[in-house]
Amino acid sequence: MPLTQDQLDEIATLRSSPRETLRSVAPGMEAHLYTAHPVLDHGFVRVIDYMGDDAAICQAARVSYGKGTRSVQNDEGLIRYLMRHWHSTPFEMCEVKLHVKLPVFVARQWIRHRTANVNEYSARYSILDREFYIPAPGDLAAQSAVNNQGRGDVLAGEEAARVLEILKGDSTRAYDNYEAMISDEGQDGLARELARMNLPANIYTQWYWKVDLHNLFHFLRLRADAHAQYEIRVYAEEICKVVADWVPFAYKAFEDYRLGAVTMSAQMVECLRRMLAGEAVTQENSGMSAREWREFEGVLG
Amino acid sequence: MPLTQDQLDEIATLRSSPRETLRSVAPGMEAHLYTAHPVLDHGFVRVIDYMGDDAAICQAARVSYGKGTRSVQNDEGLIRYLMRHWHSTPFEMCEVKLHVKLPVFVARQWIRHRTANVNEYSARYSILDREFYIPAPGDLAAQSAVNNQGRGDVLAGEEAARVLEILKGDSTRAYDNYEAMISDEGQDGLARELARMNLPANIYTQWYWKVDLHNLFHFLRLRADAHAQYEIRVYAEEICKVVADWVPFAYKAFEDYRLGAVTMSAQMVECLRRMLAGEAVTQENSGMSAREWREFEGVLG
Amino acid sequence: MPLTQDQLDEIATLRSSPRETLRSVAPGMEAHLYTAHPVLDHGFVRVIDYMGDDAAICQAARVSYGKGTRSVQNDEGLIRYLMRHWHSTPFEMCEVKLHVKLPVFVARQWIRHRTANVNEYSARYSILDREFYIPAPGDLAAQSAVNNQGRGDVLAGEEAARVLEILKGDSTRAYDNYEAMISDEGQDGLARELARMNLPANIYTQWYWKVDLHNLFHFLRLRADAHAQYEIRVYAEEICKVVADWVPFAYKAFEDYRLGAVTMSAQMVECLRRMLAGEAVTQENSGMSAREWREFEGVLG
Amino acid sequence: MPLTQDQLDEIATLRSSPRETLRSVAPGMEAHLYTAHPVLDHGFVRVIDYMGDDAAICQAARVSYGKGTRSVQNDEGLIRYLMRHWHSTPFEMCEVKLHVKLPVFVARQWIRHRTANVNEYSARYSILDREFYIPAPGDLAAQSAVNNQGRGDVLAGEEAARVLEILKGDSTRAYDNYEAMISDEGQDGLARELARMNLPANIYTQWYWKVDLHNLFHFLRLRADAHAQYEIRVYAEEICKVVADWVPFAYKAFEDYRLGAVTMSAQMVECLRRMLAGEAVTQENSGMSAREWREFEGVLG
Repeated sequence: MPLTQDQLDEIATLRSSPRETLRSVAPGMEAHLYTAHPVLDHGFVRVIDYMGDDAAICQAARVSYGKGTRSVQNDEGLIRYLMRHWHSTPFEMCEVKLHVKLPVFVARQWIRHRTANVNEYSARYSILDREFYIPAPGDLAAQSAVNNQGRGDVLAGEEAARVLEILKGDSTRAYDNYEAMISDEGQDGLARELARMNLPANIYTQWYWKVDLHNLFHFLRLRADAHAQYEIRVYAEEICKVVADWVPFAYKAFEDYRLGAVTMSAQMVECLRRMLAGEAVTQENSGMSAREWREFEGVLG
Repeated sequence: MPLTQDQLDEIATLRSSPRETLRSVAPGMEAHLYTAHPVLDHGFVRVIDYMGDDAAICQAARVSYGKGTRSVQNDEGLIRYLMRHWHSTPFEMCEVKLHVKLPVFVARQWIRHRTANVNEYSARYSILDREFYIPAPGDLAAQSAVNNQGRGDVLAGEEAARVLEILKGDSTRAYDNYEAMISDEGQDGLARELARMNLPANIYTQWYWKVDLHNLFHFLRLRADAHAQYEIRVYAEEICKVVADWVPFAYKAFEDYRLGAVTMSAQMVECLRRMLAGEAVTQENSGMSAREWREFEGVLG
Repeated sequence: MPLTQDQLDEIATLRSSPRETLRSVAPGMEAHLYTAHPVLDHGFVRVIDYMGDDAAICQAARVSYGKGTRSVQNDEGLIRYLMRHWHSTPFEMCEVKLHVKLPVFVARQWIRHRTANVNEYSARYSILDREFYIPAPGDLAAQSAVNNQGRGDVLAGEEAARVLEILKGDSTRAYDNYEAMISDEGQDGLARELARMNLPANIYTQWYWKVDLHNLFHFLRLRADAHAQYEIRVYAEEICKVVADWVPFAYKAFEDYRLGAVTMSAQMVECLRRMLAGEAVTQENSGMSAREWREFEGVLG
Repeated sequence: MPLTQDQLDEIATLRSSPRETLRSVAPGMEAHLYTAHPVLDHGFVRVIDYMGDDAAICQAARVSYGKGTRSVQNDEGLIRYLMRHWHSTPFEMCEVKLHVKLPVFVARQWIRHRTANVNEYSARYSILDREFYIPAPGDLAAQSAVNNQGRGDVLAGEEAARVLEILKGDSTRAYDNYEAMISDEGQDGLARELARMNLPANIYTQWYWKVDLHNLFHFLRLRADAHAQYEIRVYAEEICKVVADWVPFAYKAFEDYRLGAVTMSAQMVECLRRMLAGEAVTQENSGMSAREWREFEGVLG
C-alpha cells in the first residue's frame, strides 16, 4: 500500500475544506484533487492543482478567432475542429500539477519530455525511503526475440523465482549499505549526495510535475501507446482517466484524432486508393518495404 | 476608455458568481480576477486565471527538499532563500493567465519571451477594431543623442503637434482603406489576411498570455527595467502590482534580489574591496573601460 | 530585385574562400551557403551556417541504440524508421541558421514557432529601409466565402487596381511620414522606437533564425501546407528545397511520413475497414460529422 | 583509462581527414574535435560538432542593431556589452554538440537543464557496459554538519575503506546479477528494459548533448560554481576550457560578468553606499538576515 495513515489523514483534511473562488471550476477534477491513485507496487499519481476546463479552451480560441466563431455551434464542435487541425495553443491554456511517486528508471524516461515543470525530491539534501519496485510475477517479461526494444513471454518457474530473488536481495542489500554509509553513529557519515549512488534504479522517487494540456496530450500519446514500456504506460493510463474527467470534450477529441488515430504515409494513401478502386495490391507492387507493409496490414486489420 | 458597457457587464457577471473549489486560493488574486486594469490609451491587463500561491512554492520545494526543510522556519524565509540562490523550479509551480490588449509594436517585443503560451486575436480570421495607440503629449520623446536605443527630451510646440497629426491622420487613413478593401459591397472584398498588411504597428491587438511565475519574473525584470521602452514598461508595472497581491512573499524577494539588485563584475568586486580598504580607485587603475566605470559609479550613487 | 550590388559582392567574397574543417560537411548545403534565394518581391532566404547531415542523425541515434543498430542495414533505413516512429531527438542533432528578409505580417506568424533562436533587425535602434510587400496581381485574392480563414478568387479589374493603389499609396505616405518624424534637421526628431509605430505590416524586416531539424520539419509541415497563408508558404517551400539538398534521406522520409501523409481518426480507420470488406459506407452510417466526412472523401480521392 | 584502442583509432581517423567548408571555422575548436577529455574515473567529454565563433555572435547582433553598430569599435567590445546588458539572443547563435560519458546520478542532475537536445544510450535496447564510478579516496567526503546539501571533511581510515569496499562490492554484484538475469543461455532471459532496474546510479551512461552558447553559459554558471556537486563540476570545468578555446571573447566576458560576478541585493547595495560614505555598518543595522550578512561579508572578503 503506497500511503501511510498520516498521508491519508492529510489528504482527508485537504479534501474537507472547500473555499470560494471566482475562477473556472471543473467538477470532474475537483473529485480527484489530492487523492492518490495507486500505480505499480508503491507508486501513485495525484492531482495537486489544475487551471481551466473545456470552456477555457474555447474562450482562448475565441480571442484568437474573435467574432468569427459565432458560426461554430458549440464548444465540443470547436474543440474537435481545433484538435483535428493541429491548433495547439488553445489546449496550452489548461494546466495541471501532479504529484507522482515512481521508480527512478521510469522517472528517467519521463523527464525526456522537456516542456514541463518538475520539482523532484532531492537525494542530495534528504534521505530516500526504503521502497523499491519489484515487478508482479505476471510482469516479469522475457526479452523479445524479434524486437530489441520489446518484451516477449512472461518468465516462469525457476527463472522467474531467481529474478525476483535477485531484485529483492540486491535492493535490500543496496539500501542497507546506503544506510550504513550515511550513518553518523561512531563515524563521520558519507555525504548523502555520494551515498545515493549505491541505490539501484528501481528505488522510488517522487516529484511535482506541472504541464499544459497540449504537452500532456503529447506525453500521453507516446506513453499510453502499446509500444511504451509497461511501467510508464500504467502511469499514463491512470492520467488518461483523470484527464477524461477534467476536460471530457478535449479528451474525447484526443482519443479520436490522436490516440486511436493512424498516420498513413503518402505510399499507404496511394495503395488505399488503388485498393478501393478494386485493384489487388501486394507488398511487391505497393512501393513499401516489407516492414512498412506489415504495419499497413496491421492498420487495416 | 478601453472597455465598452457590454464588456463591463460581462466582467461584473463573472465576478458575481463565486464557486467552491478544493484548490489553493490566493485572496489577493481573487480581488483582481477579470477586472481590466487600463494601460496606455486603449490597452488593458486583466487576470483570467491563476494557479498556486506563496504556499504552493514552498510545498513544491519541500517535495524537492523533503524532511530537511523542517529547519527553515517559515515560508517567507524559504522563498527568500530559493530566490537568492537561483532555485527556479519551485517558482515555476505557479501559473497565471492574462488577457492583454496592446499595440502591435509592443506585442512584437513581448513575444520574444518564448517560454509562455499565447493565443492572439487572428486578423486572418477576424476584422480588427479601429483602435490605435496615440502617445500622450508627455510621452512624445525625441531620439536620444547619446544612446541609439534610448529617448531624449519630450518634443514640444510645432514639432509635437505635427507628429500627433501624422500619427492620427495615418492611422485613420490606413483603417479607412482597410475597411474599403475588405468591403464586399459591390465588390469581392480583399482577403482579410491580406488587407491587414495595410495597418500600422500602433493598432491594438489582444491575446491570452499564460506563463509560470519564474518566467514571468524574468519578463518583469527585463521589461519593468528603466531601460525598457516606456510603452511595454507600463504593462510590466501593472503586472508587478498584480503579482505583489498574488504572491506577496515571492514578489518581495523578487524586488530585493532581482529588480532592485545589481550584478557586479569580477572587476567591480575587486575595486570595491580596494575602496573599502581605503584605496583611492579611479577608472585609470580600475581595469574597467570608461563605460563600465560610469556604470559602476552609477551603482555606488 | 532584393539585393544590392554591395550585398552580392559580399556574398561572392564569402563563397570564394573555403577553409579546412574536421567537422562533418554536407556538400549539398555548401552549394547554398550565403546565396540569397528570392522570395516575394523584396524578400529572401539564405543559409548562413549549418551543423550535421544525414549521417549525423544516425550517429546520434546509434549512441541511443548502441550495438543493436547493426541490424539496421543502412542509414536511410534507420532514418525512415526514426521518422515513422516519431523519434524526434536524432533529428534535433542537426541545426541550421538562416538569414531571412520578410514582411512584418509574415514575421508575426513565423515567430509563433517558439523553439528557435531569433535575432531581428531592431527598429528601436536602427532605421528601417523603404521596402514594402506589394502583392503581384495574381496574388490579390478575395476573402473566401466558405472559410473565414481562407482565400477565394483573385480580384480583377477596377477592384484590383484600387487595392494596389491603396497599398502603394499608404506605404509611401507612411514611410515619408516616418522619415519626417525622425528627421533631426531643424527639429529634435522623434525617437525611432516611437516613429516605427507608423509603419504598416507590409514593411520588410529581417532576422537570423536558427532552428534544429526536428523543429524545422514541424514548421515546414504547418507552413508548407496548402492551408497556410500564401505569403509564408512561399518561404517554407524555398526552405524545403534547401533541406532536400542538405539531408536528402531525412527530407525524403519527411515527405513520405509527414508532408504527404494523412492522419486518419479512429472513426475513419473503422470506416476504411468496412469499405475494404465490401460494405457501402455513407456519411449517415459513418459516425462522422458532415465536415469530417468531406475531409475523409478528400483523402480517398 | 576511459577509451579502448579501437576508440582511440576511430578518433585518430576522424581527426586525420580535414575537408573544405565555406562556413565559419573556429581554429581553437578544431583542435578539440573528437578528442576525449577524461573526467572522473571512466568518463569523458568530447566535441562532436560546433556552429559559429565570436564573429558569428557579432554578425547576428548586427542584424539586430543594423547600421548603428558602426560606433562599437570592435567585436570584443560588442560582445562584452551584450553580455553585460543581458542580451541573450546573439549568444544563442552559436551551438555545440558534445559526446559525454557520465555516471547516471550525474546525468540525472544534468538533464534538469531542459533547453538542450539529448540522445542517450538506451538501456531498453542495448546492454550497458560494466563501468562504475568509484570515487578517488580524496573525494570521499562526509556529510556537511552545517549544510544539508553540502560536503564536509574527507573520510579517513577504516570508514573510508569500508565505503569503498561497499561501493565496489555492490557494483560488481549488481552487474553480475544484471548479466545473469538477461542471459539467454538455458533460460528465456529477462527483458533488458526490466533488468536495468537492478543497476545502481554510479553506473556510466553516455549521450550526445547539443546546446546553444547562451544556455551552455547558464549551465556552466550553475554547475562550475563552488556549490555544485563535485562530480558534475568537473564536467563543467572541462567544458569551460573547451569554450575558452572556441569563443575566447565571449568566454572572457562570461568569466567577468557571470562566473566571477556577484549579485548584490537592494539591501546590500544600500549598505555598500553607507560603508563607502564612512558609516560603520553591522548586521544589526544592515536590514539583512544573519545568513545574508554572512554572504555579504563573504563577497567583500
